[in-house]
Amino acid sequence: MNDHGIDAGLLSPVRAGTPVEAATGDRAWLQAMLDAEAALARAQARLGTLPASAAAAISSAARAERLDARTLALAARETANPVVGLVQAFTSAVAADDPSAAEYVHRGSTSQDILDTGTMLVAARTLRLVLADLRRTADALASLAREHRDTPMAGRTLTLHAVPTTFGLKAAGWRQLVLESAERLERVLDHGLPVALGGAAGTLAGYLEYAKVDGGVPGHEVGDYLDRLTAAYAEETGLSRPLLPWHALRTPIADLAAALAHTAAALGKLAVDVQVLARTEVAEACEPAPAGRGASSAMPHKRNPVLATLIRSAALQVPVLAAGLTQCLTTEDERSGGAWHAEWLLLRECLRLAGGAAHTAVELAEGLTVRPERMRANLDLTGSRLVTERVAAVLAPRVGKATARRCLTRASVLADREGRPLAEILGGLPELKDVFADGELATLLDPEGYTGAAGPLVDRALGRGPGGGGGGSRLNPSVPG
Amino acid sequence: MNDHGIDAGLLSPVRAGTPVEAATGDRAWLQAMLDAEAALARAQARLGTLPASAAAAISSAARAERLDARTLALAARETANPVVGLVQAFTSAVAADDPSAAEYVHRGSTSQDILDTGTMLVAARTLRLVLADLRRTADALASLAREHRDTPMAGRTLTLHAVPTTFGLKAAGWRQLVLESAERLERVLDHGLPVALGGAAGTLAGYLEYAKVDGGVPGHEVGDYLDRLTAAYAEETGLSRPLLPWHALRTPIADLAAALAHTAAALGKLAVDVQVLARTEVAEACEPAPAGRGASSAMPHKRNPVLATLIRSAALQVPVLAAGLTQCLTTEDERSGGAWHAEWLLLRECLRLAGGAAHTAVELAEGLTVRPERMRANLDLTGSRLVTERVAAVLAPRVGKATARRCLTRASVLADREGRPLAEILGGLPELKDVFADGELATLLDPEGYTGAAGPLVDRALGRGPGGGGGGSRLNPSVPG
Amino acid sequence: MNDHGIDAGLLSPVRAGTPVEAATGDRAWLQAMLDAEAALARAQARLGTLPASAAAAISSAARAERLDARTLALAARETANPVVGLVQAFTSAVAADDPSAAEYVHRGSTSQDILDTGTMLVAARTLRLVLADLRRTADALASLAREHRDTPMAGRTLTLHAVPTTFGLKAAGWRQLVLESAERLERVLDHGLPVALGGAAGTLAGYLEYAKVDGGVPGHEVGDYLDRLTAAYAEETGLSRPLLPWHALRTPIADLAAALAHTAAALGKLAVDVQVLARTEVAEACEPAPAGRGASSAMPHKRNPVLATLIRSAALQVPVLAAGLTQCLTTEDERSGGAWHAEWLLLRECLRLAGGAAHTAVELAEGLTVRPERMRANLDLTGSRLVTERVAAVLAPRVGKATARRCLTRASVLADREGRPLAEILGGLPELKDVFADGELATLLDPEGYTGAAGPLVDRALGRGPGGGGGGSRLNPSVPG
Amino acid sequence: MNDHGIDAGLLSPVRAGTPVEAATGDRAWLQAMLDAEAALARAQARLGTLPASAAAAISSAARAERLDARTLALAARETANPVVGLVQAFTSAVAADDPSAAEYVHRGSTSQDILDTGTMLVAARTLRLVLADLRRTADALASLAREHRDTPMAGRTLTLHAVPTTFGLKAAGWRQLVLESAERLERVLDHGLPVALGGAAGTLAGYLEYAKVDGGVPGHEVGDYLDRLTAAYAEETGLSRPLLPWHALRTPIADLAAALAHTAAALGKLAVDVQVLARTEVAEACEPAPAGRGASSAMPHKRNPVLATLIRSAALQVPVLAAGLTQCLTTEDERSGGAWHAEWLLLRECLRLAGGAAHTAVELAEGLTVRPERMRANLDLTGSRLVTERVAAVLAPRVGKATARRCLTRASVLADREGRPLAEILGGLPELKDVFADGELATLLDPEGYTGAAGPLVDRALGRGPGGGGGGSRLNPSVPG
Repeated sequence: MNDHGIDAGLLSPVRAGTPVEAATGDRAWLQAMLDAEAALARAQARLGTLPASAAAAISSAARAERLDARTLALAARETANPVVGLVQAFTSAVAADDPSAAEYVHRGSTSQDILDTGTMLVAARTLRLVLADLRRTADALASLAREHRDTPMAGRTLTLHAVPTTFGLKAAGWRQLVLESAERLERVLDHGLPVALGGAAGTLAGYLEYAKVDGGVPGHEVGDYLDRLTAAYAEETGLSRPLLPWHALRTPIADLAAALAHTAAALGKLAVDVQVLARTEVAEACEPAPAGRGASSAMPHKRNPVLATLIRSAALQVPVLAAGLTQCLTTEDERSGGAWHAEWLLLRECLRLAGGAAHTAVELAEGLTVRPERMRANLDLTGSRLVTERVAAVLAPRVGKATARRCLTRASVLADREGRPLAEILGGLPELKDVFADGELATLLDPEGYTGAAGPLVDRALGRGPGGGGGGSRLNPSVPG
Repeated sequence: MNDHGIDAGLLSPVRAGTPVEAATGDRAWLQAMLDAEAALARAQARLGTLPASAAAAISSAARAERLDARTLALAARETANPVVGLVQAFTSAVAADDPSAAEYVHRGSTSQDILDTGTMLVAARTLRLVLADLRRTADALASLAREHRDTPMAGRTLTLHAVPTTFGLKAAGWRQLVLESAERLERVLDHGLPVALGGAAGTLAGYLEYAKVDGGVPGHEVGDYLDRLTAAYAEETGLSRPLLPWHALRTPIADLAAALAHTAAALGKLAVDVQVLARTEVAEACEPAPAGRGASSAMPHKRNPVLATLIRSAALQVPVLAAGLTQCLTTEDERSGGAWHAEWLLLRECLRLAGGAAHTAVELAEGLTVRPERMRANLDLTGSRLVTERVAAVLAPRVGKATARRCLTRASVLADREGRPLAEILGGLPELKDVFADGELATLLDPEGYTGAAGPLVDRALGRGPGGGGGGSRLNPSVPG
Repeated sequence: MNDHGIDAGLLSPVRAGTPVEAATGDRAWLQAMLDAEAALARAQARLGTLPASAAAAISSAARAERLDARTLALAARETANPVVGLVQAFTSAVAADDPSAAEYVHRGSTSQDILDTGTMLVAARTLRLVLADLRRTADALASLAREHRDTPMAGRTLTLHAVPTTFGLKAAGWRQLVLESAERLERVLDHGLPVALGGAAGTLAGYLEYAKVDGGVPGHEVGDYLDRLTAAYAEETGLSRPLLPWHALRTPIADLAAALAHTAAALGKLAVDVQVLARTEVAEACEPAPAGRGASSAMPHKRNPVLATLIRSAALQVPVLAAGLTQCLTTEDERSGGAWHAEWLLLRECLRLAGGAAHTAVELAEGLTVRPERMRANLDLTGSRLVTERVAAVLAPRVGKATARRCLTRASVLADREGRPLAEILGGLPELKDVFADGELATLLDPEGYTGAAGPLVDRALGRGPGGGGGGSRLNPSVPG
Repeated sequence: MNDHGIDAGLLSPVRAGTPVEAATGDRAWLQAMLDAEAALARAQARLGTLPASAAAAISSAARAERLDARTLALAARETANPVVGLVQAFTSAVAADDPSAAEYVHRGSTSQDILDTGTMLVAARTLRLVLADLRRTADALASLAREHRDTPMAGRTLTLHAVPTTFGLKAAGWRQLVLESAERLERVLDHGLPVALGGAAGTLAGYLEYAKVDGGVPGHEVGDYLDRLTAAYAEETGLSRPLLPWHALRTPIADLAAALAHTAAALGKLAVDVQVLARTEVAEACEPAPAGRGASSAMPHKRNPVLATLIRSAALQVPVLAAGLTQCLTTEDERSGGAWHAEWLLLRECLRLAGGAAHTAVELAEGLTVRPERMRANLDLTGSRLVTERVAAVLAPRVGKATARRCLTRASVLADREGRPLAEILGGLPELKDVFADGELATLLDPEGYTGAAGPLVDRALGRGPGGGGGGSRLNPSVPG
């Protein structure tokens, strides 16, 4: 094969060599389309409108290595999709094994039924891989959350220290997002990947006509045949049964796009947080660094946070690709001239980028090194100013909210400008004379004592339901919206 | 008010004057944020950490007309969000009514809790309006599907006549998409709109500190207070309870974005199909035309399909806006400096564009004029060539698939070139001599006889479950994916 | 090679097998990065800081077939980019030829300099292919515009017949857009593709340090060496000289994205117009149909407009991919951890989708069949109502604008409802009694006589400047904006 | 006015109260459309086909305060654009002043000519505001670059310290991007904002017909009248002359979108860099903080970097909005039913978000506080490891590249693990025994001595051309691409 035009992963390291890459390559797509052809033949055979021997021969010939993806790709330019060429080549392959079976290849079918069903098979296979990686990621994050339930660190908002939080709560939040992605992908996997079965314009007329010709389906049994063929096809593929042919009703694609965009962008949250924590000046966490990992071509001292980098690269790409897929819902006629065709590449890249990010996240979550001593040291940078909110709360009933706020703002500015401890300055303000009990201020100003409900929140995030739960019940379904 | 900068709908007719526009304006958002403040105070009062009288005063003062949205908008530039100014102005308003209550405004809270809870309230109120419009649209489409169950028309793929279908099946497909949008919005409305309750950095520390100060919550009851406060706040607002504070876990926004993008883009499918049917040369359907509707500034004879135009304008916008929202999942720290702030305008426009499209779709679906006689006339343009697929199916077992296809392709070309009837040409081909029974070809070539399972598909789409059913169970959940 | 993960074009027929596909494959990118390494060595040799023999050995070893793209892709996961592995492998390749030269590979350089320069080389090579195709497309459209300068057809707005236009004006408009795309790509090609030369953090410190070590550049010549190295590198690659290192100043990528998005979306205009004209009911134009082209897997009679379909599929994808690239302008630090990495795949797909669309447009434009007789027949569908605007103009000074408009609206409705000629109805309206001269109405109502300035517009679009011109001077630069 | 649906800026603080907000509000758009009507009348009067007195009356009545934007917005739902209603209301306003002039309002015109010309006027007025802000921003950044030409700081890549750079080079890079945005906006402003003049379907037939009726333009002068009318309209509005009517050739919109996306995303680079520098742990720069700025509703001690936050919020939004605009290039027929209508809101928001970001950037750039002492302190965190690249360069010719790299990697790891100075460790490595001269290592390891060409780069970025130049000549146009 002349490989000049090939994409073998050089420009997309987030997925290069990962299982999702193999599951979404041209070969995998080709195999899935052949699986669709074979499943269709078996379904028709189960209904008696196609010889069982033909279905067997078709199934046995349905191996991607017997066809050449590149040849089919080139042929696809003539017909705007790769199925016309695939049917020709596959028919020849079947004919080579069993000439009589060749008549029954693609019986009554249409390109879109095969390509869409193949796409759903690819999606199902890929989602299972992604889900396994998300679960491993969530498990690793649960361990981090548990271990660091009470590890204090600075909570940061708009890039600045705000009030203290715990690393456990941060990790529990990452895990929560990962579970939410998994929940969305599972919903699609369980109910959202239907077989495509419509024939030339969504009426199944071709299937019915051949069924009449081949097996004598009388006209009044059309509805029954429709139901049975759809059910048999769904069973043979393991996909769902659609209520209507969805050639031009593209919800399955839009749902996949939304769930994959959620996955990539949610993992991106983990990545950008790790990037903040890994910054030289922050240094509260660092990525796992096996030999060779994170090497720079120029700087021997660096250990780049490459896993977070790769994940973030996917997070930046998938949402815009997914928007292109969502737009394909707006598709004209019984089959669009272009909107259908625009889905294929976008969906493939969404699958492999989100999946690559999930695969990368496993390694990041399982190997993340956390540095509580750096978290403590950074907390000390802001020191007691970090808990001015707390002092404000205590002061409010004693001197009024406005006075409390004014005093704290002034004291913070002075502490910053003069480099003096906040306690000393607050203690000296005339408005606050005799307001604090002895030692009260020191207690109030200890950042570690002001982590609020961080611990119980971690417990709740980790403790609900079996399997470390919570993902499926994040929001209370019993409270009316 | 100097109104030079105001957006009053001039550039967005799809939502100008619709209920969703009012539900998503600055005034409505301001009211929702005040509702959040009031609900928070009542929730705290229910837990005994805030005087009931203060909660009552706060609730009674929480009326948007007492504040000025423009003043708050201008003040928001200083703090990067409108809540700081809102709290100041609202505190003054409460103080004017009840000075002692003013101390309890925004007690322990943070800007994001109020803005996010307000946003969820706006979303909930808007989704209810959108859902009502989607249901009316679906009902009208169900009527069309029922009435035209057996009205034949050309099925079109890649812009060309393919095989016959029925208008009923087309309308049933539109309805299916509308139901799927509704299902996605309902899922968000029922489970996906949580209160925001985290305090400065998501630990609820401020709430707890004030609770201790105000009501004496002992340390070991922190988890309990957390649960009760969250529950009370959820009940007071009618929103869901989050498992964790979601300041930096933005699934509720991403889910809203995905469901609204589905809605707008799915309605866009209805719109582009109506546009095809309304084309001068096709003329199979036309929009309702009350006086003045669709007038052109230049051409008195035209009745522009303005409803489809408006809906399509929304379908083109919402998916890209939604992509911007999805990207905001990738948000750093306990609160992002920018990603949070980028959500507000994008979400508002998604809500009102999708909602405007739904409102417009009601009128389109309820008033669409269908012209079966034009459908029949257009079918005759392609005539018997439209059912060559059927003839191919019948011929396949008689002369082989390849011969059948070759004969039909040749005959189609000849029919097109010579303007002769396909039946005549087919009948004269030597390969097909004596292949057809008398009259068989005429029957086979009647387009109206070749609508496949269109009728039963309409029945299934309309007939399942109560309430016109089908939407919630489109895909078979019992078949493993 | 295990090809399971490979993208060989199966899902992207718009570019499968086209020259841009080969120009943007992994192999081509690899070669371009090696070209960058070799050009850098030669540039350094020209400045005397690297032995000429080493530069020669490096240049001669810089052949992609000596490296394995897949191995480098897999290695890239460890370092988040493929250059670290490439430098190692390439150093070995050079060492095999000339061990002493191996020391000078990647001398003072950094991954981003090589990858970015390689990307610019790929872009330059690809843009030349795209431009050649755009020029052929524009030439073919010019011929169509010239030939059909006065071929009347219905002008269509909001899907309905509006007033007459000519096919020549439509073709001239398509050509104008193509020229505008070409102009934007040329601007990027001529001035917007700079070498990347910054070293580890954009200061060129590594280059300078090695230059001192190798060739004794004294400190006070730093600026001079900088200028000379940049110039030599630009000359060796044929790329532009940047004013500053652009590791984190990503205008070249954003400009490429914008020009490619314009190209794909503008060609999309041609495609959707052809799709309207190709519709069965309209049938005013059809695509070239060599044997096998446009075949349907199910329907022998169809000749799908596959070229327009392919082009439109690209038009739907590129703008969203380009948005992802534009967002990468917002990149932190001296090199982003993720935003840089997100560019590669997006840019590759933009290049090959836009380029594939341009390649496809050549064939579409050169082979489009135009059917003036169908245009005339379609004009007759609306008939004289198509020129009500004209009658309104004539009537306005005679009976007043408001009366004119009212009469025409009423007459149009009646003509539509009663199927009577508009002339007859207008002639019978009491308000218009004696308003028209004899025969005037018939002349006024002839659609072919009402094509306005269509002819002169075509002349102006085609006639300006050399080479069929106009593209570079569409907008009058002498009129201040 | 019932203001429930109004957007007065509450959710978009980046533009609330800025000049671009007023320049892009409904009122401003309305005025621009009236300006278009008036300019059209004056242009027609100059050509003698409309009474000068009518043009004067029309111009004098063309004041937005005489119309009600909300009423027109509501009316726009009936016609899918606001111009039909505007023409009616404006005609009444003219009639109230001068009944005879009312006949000449919108003479021969069409909605799109007025809306598009109005849009170009709004864009021109807004771009001038944006450009003024970008120039002020660039000037302030030039001052920062000049002042800090030699202020060393850590260069950061993938979030980690890489090698030293200077703050001057960083500021020069920000300025470069701002100049590049300005260059792109200027190009659009100077050549890319044409009047729209096409009439109902782009043939100018209506204009010509009225010209014949009103002024007797003979048929053979059609081309001449076309040229003169276009020129006069361009002169009256100050906009450019299009080569062809651009109702369906949307390059002006796409170009605006691209330039505005560049502007917002490039300013976003400034913002995210400031956010890194402002981080509590980094603290190398901070935003200007006038009283009240950056206040938190919960935390008295914080001074949030609100300007960077606001700018980044725009940077996240504009590119996706712009993608929606670019897609509108793919527009069918002589006027699209939806794609045109989707542009209006998207373009308005792009203008005001990018413009708001530019306005905010002025304040950020002019008031940024830079802390060289913190930069130095942070440099010391990584210390001599920051210049391992330099040591590697010096060692390479002495011990070979591979040995040099191995020694430095090992020494960096040891220095990190054992907290010992790198110099000490390197000095003790057996491979490097006697390799360094006395004192050489200390000199080599001083970060401040390793800023490469940072200084000369700043000089070149600031020094070229008049006006602090460089923006227009960033890339060398003399080197062939």
